Amino acid sequence: MAIRLDASSPDFERAFETLLTGKRESSVDVNDAVAKIIADVRARGDAALIELTNKFDRLSLTPETLRIPDAELDAAVAACDAKTLDALKMAKARIEAYHARQKPSDGRFTDAQGVELGHRWTAVGAVGLYVPGGTANYPSSVLMNAVPAKVAGVERVVMVVPMPDGKVNPLVLAAARLAGVDEVYRVGGAQAVAALAYGTATIKPVDKIVGPGNAFVAAAKRQVFGIVGIDMIAGPSEILVVADGQNDPDWIAADLLSQAEHDESSQSILVTDDAAFASRVEEAVAAQLKLLPRETTATKSWADFGAVIVVKSLVDSVPLVDRLAPEHLEIAVDDPEPLAARIRNAGAIFLGRYTPEAVGDYVAGSNHVLPTARSARFSSGLNVLDFMKRTSIVRCDADSLGRIGPAAVALATAEGLDAHGRSVSIRLNK
Amino acid sequence: MAIRLDASSPDFERAFETLLTGKRESSVDVNDAVAKIIADVRARGDAALIELTNKFDRLSLTPETLRIPDAELDAAVAACDAKTLDALKMAKARIEAYHARQKPSDGRFTDAQGVELGHRWTAVGAVGLYVPGGTANYPSSVLMNAVPAKVAGVERVVMVVPMPDGKVNPLVLAAARLAGVDEVYRVGGAQAVAALAYGTATIKPVDKIVGPGNAFVAAAKRQVFGIVGIDMIAGPSEILVVADGQNDPDWIAADLLSQAEHDESSQSILVTDDAAFASRVEEAVAAQLKLLPRETTATKSWADFGAVIVVKSLVDSVPLVDRLAPEHLEIAVDDPEPLAARIRNAGAIFLGRYTPEAVGDYVAGSNHVLPTARSARFSSGLNVLDFMKRTSIVRCDADSLGRIGPAAVALATAEGLDAHGRSVSIRLNK
Repeated sequence: MAIRLDASSPDFERAFETLLTGKRESSVDVNDAVAKIIADVRARGDAALIELTNKFDRLSLTPETLRIPDAELDAAVAACDAKTLDALKMAKARIEAYHARQKPSDGRFTDAQGVELGHRWTAVGAVGLYVPGGTANYPSSVLMNAVPAKVAGVERVVMVVPMPDGKVNPLVLAAARLAGVDEVYRVGGAQAVAALAYGTATIKPVDKIVGPGNAFVAAAKRQVFGIVGIDMIAGPSEILVVADGQNDPDWIAADLLSQAEHDESSQSILVTDDAAFASRVEEAVAAQLKLLPRETTATKSWADFGAVIVVKSLVDSVPLVDRLAPEHLEIAVDDPEPLAARIRNAGAIFLGRYTPEAVGDYVAGSNHVLPTARSARFSSGLNVLDFMKRTSIVRCDADSLGRIGPAAVALATAEGLDAHGRSVSIRLNK
Repeated sequence: MAIRLDASSPDFERAFETLLTGKRESSVDVNDAVAKIIADVRARGDAALIELTNKFDRLSLTPETLRIPDAELDAAVAACDAKTLDALKMAKARIEAYHARQKPSDGRFTDAQGVELGHRWTAVGAVGLYVPGGTANYPSSVLMNAVPAKVAGVERVVMVVPMPDGKVNPLVLAAARLAGVDEVYRVGGAQAVAALAYGTATIKPVDKIVGPGNAFVAAAKRQVFGIVGIDMIAGPSEILVVADGQNDPDWIAADLLSQAEHDESSQSILVTDDAAFASRVEEAVAAQLKLLPRETTATKSWADFGAVIVVKSLVDSVPLVDRLAPEHLEIAVDDPEPLAARIRNAGAIFLGRYTPEAVGDYVAGSNHVLPTARSARFSSGLNVLDFMKRTSIVRCDADSLGRIGPAAVALATAEGLDAHGRSVSIRLNK
C-alpha cells in the first residue's frame, strides 16, 4: 500500500521531503570489473569480445558471425504476426513524423558592425544503440532511439544486443530493420560498449552511444564518456498523475500501475484534491494488482515508492510537481492547459482524461526516453538534437575587425593573454 | 618545435593516428579526496564550507561574509579602467545579441488522427557558475557562461569564485555584475561544487552547474552529476588553421600561438598546401615566441603538441579536420565557404584571413566554451539550450485514442507489459 500524504497536515513538508530525496536505486559498484573488460576489448579487439560473449552469454561466435546478417533481420520482420507488425509500423511512422519537426535550422546574419555570424547543425557521424537482453528487451525502445538518429541524418546506426544462450526477441530485430539500423551485432554488456567506443577489427567505432542497460552497461558508458558521447543514464520509471474527483478511479489506477509494473524501483504518485476519490483509486489499485502478470513487481513498487497526496486545490500541485520533476506527468481534468502552463519540470505531459501515459510509450510519436530521478529540472527527453551538434561560424573582414578588434585586444591584455591580443592587433591598421 | 607531417608520405597515416590519439592531459585521481569533501559539506553545510575555505584558501569567513555583497560588485565595476569596462560592455552586448537568436520556439500541432502533439521549452530554475581562481580567472568566461543562462531565462544565476588569501580579480566581479549574476560567493574547489549541488543554510541549491575548474572541481562535478546537471568537462584548448600560401606567415603564427599560450597541454596545428609557407610560419612562430610573456608555456605546447601538416590540396584537409574535430578551426583562404561547407566536426569555424580565433574568445558574440579533445564529433559549444529543457506534450480525446490506442495495446501485449496495455484499453469503447 502506498503512503498517503495530506498537504494540509503540519508534518507534510517533512514527509514530502522524504519522498523527494528517497533513494530508489541501490547502486552496485562494478567499476573495476568494467574497467578490466574495457581494457581487454581495447587491447585484443574481436578476440576479447568473442571470449567475453562466450563467458557471459554462453554464445560461441567468430568474427564472421558477430554481425547479424540482413537476411536474418528480414526473416524476423517476416516472422512477426501481422497485428504486431502493423503496430510497429504505425509507431515508427508516428515517431518519425513527430521527430522530423525537431530538425533545427542553420542561420547566418551580418550585424551592425559588419561581422558575419551564424551557426550550422550537422549530424553525428556514427551512433551505437545498446539494447538490453532479458526482460527489458523492448522493440519500442529500438524505435525510440534509432528513429530520431536517422531523422537527424546519422549515416551509421549500429545496434548491439546480447543473445544469452543464443536467444533474442525477434521483435527487437524486426524493429531494428524497420527503423533503418545499419548494422546489428549479437554482443552485449560492458564488452559491447567498449567495442562501440574503441572499435575492433569487425566493429568500427562510433561517436556516440545511447540506450539503456544494466549496471555494467551504465558503468561502461560512464567510463567511455569523453572518447564518445553518451546519453543520460536512465533510472527507474516514474509517473505522477494529477487528477480531480471526476475521473474513473479504475482508469487512474491503471495509469499508476502502468509504471509500477516496470520495476520494483518504479514510482507512481497520485495528487488529487478529493480525499474520497483518493481512497477509491487506492481500492482500484489493490483490485487491479491481482489481475497483473507482473503483480509481484507492481505490488512492491506501489508499496515501497507509491504515494497518494491530497491537496486542497489542484493549483497547489504545481510546486509539488516542479520539485518532483516527474518523468511522466498526467493532468486528468477537463481543462488541463492552465495547470500544464504553470508546470516547469516534467519530461512529458499527458493532457486530459483520454491520454494515458502508455500511448506515449508506443504510438503518440513523442519519445519515451525521458529524464528520471528529478533530472527533468535540467534535462530533456531524447530528441533529434541529441544526434546533432552545432558549429558556430564567425567571419570578419578588415573593416569589421577594425570595429570590434580593439575591444578584443583590450580584454586579452586585461587577462594577460598577449598572444591572443597579438593575433588581432597584427591584422589591424593594415 | 612542432612536428611536421607530409600527407603524401607513406607513413603519414601512422603519424597522423599518433597525433590523433595522443593524450595531452595527465589525469590526477582525486576522487576519494573529493568524495570526502562533498560528504562533509552535505553533512555540515556552511560550517564545513567555511572550514575548508579556511584550510585551502587561507580565508576566514562567517555565514554572513560568504556572500559578496552587491555593493562590492558595484565597487569592482567602478574601479575598472574605462577602456576595459567599455570592452566588457561591448562583449556582453554582442554575446547577448548572438545568443538571443538561439531561443527555441514552442510548438503544437494536431495530426491526421486527431492527436494533439507538441513541446515546450522552459528555463532551468537555478544555475551555478564556477569561476576558477588563479591564472585561469577570466572575466570573459564569466560573460560566456552567465549571459546565455540569463538569455535562456534562468531566474537565479549563482557564481562561486575562490579568493585565495582574500584576493580576487576585480574584473571577474565586474563581469558578474554586468552579466546580471544574482549571487556571488567567495568559495571554490570541490566544497563550492558540493554547496551548489546540495545547498547549505546560506547557499540554496541549484539545478545545474557550469564552468571550468581544476582536477578537484572537475571530479566534484562528475560526482554530483545526477543530483544536478553539469556542462561538459573542458580539456586544454586547440586551434587548427587551414591556410594557403597567400597568408602573411606572421598572422598565422600569431593565431597558432594564441592557443599555445593557454596551457602547456594546448594544441596548435597548421594544415597548408604550401611547404615553403609552412616553413615561413615555423620561423615566424619561433620569432614571436620570444616576444611572449607566456613564452615558456607556449614554447612547451608548440614543441610537445604542435603540428604542421602539408597536404597536396586544401580539399585534402577536410577528412583530417573531421578526424581531429578541433575546438577552433580557422580557414584562412580567399573563399573559405566551400571548404567550410564540407567540414562536419568543429566547435567553431573562423572564416577568411581577417578572423583570428581570438575575436571569438571575446567579442564576436559566439560562445568561447567549445568542445575539446575531439568531442566536437558529438557535442556542441555552450548555448542557450544548455540552460533550458524540453517537455513533450500529448493530448488525445476519445476519438483519437480510439484510432491510435489499439496499436499501443498490441505493442504493450507483445512486450509483456499488461498494465501498460490495460491503461489504454480501459479507455477504449467508452
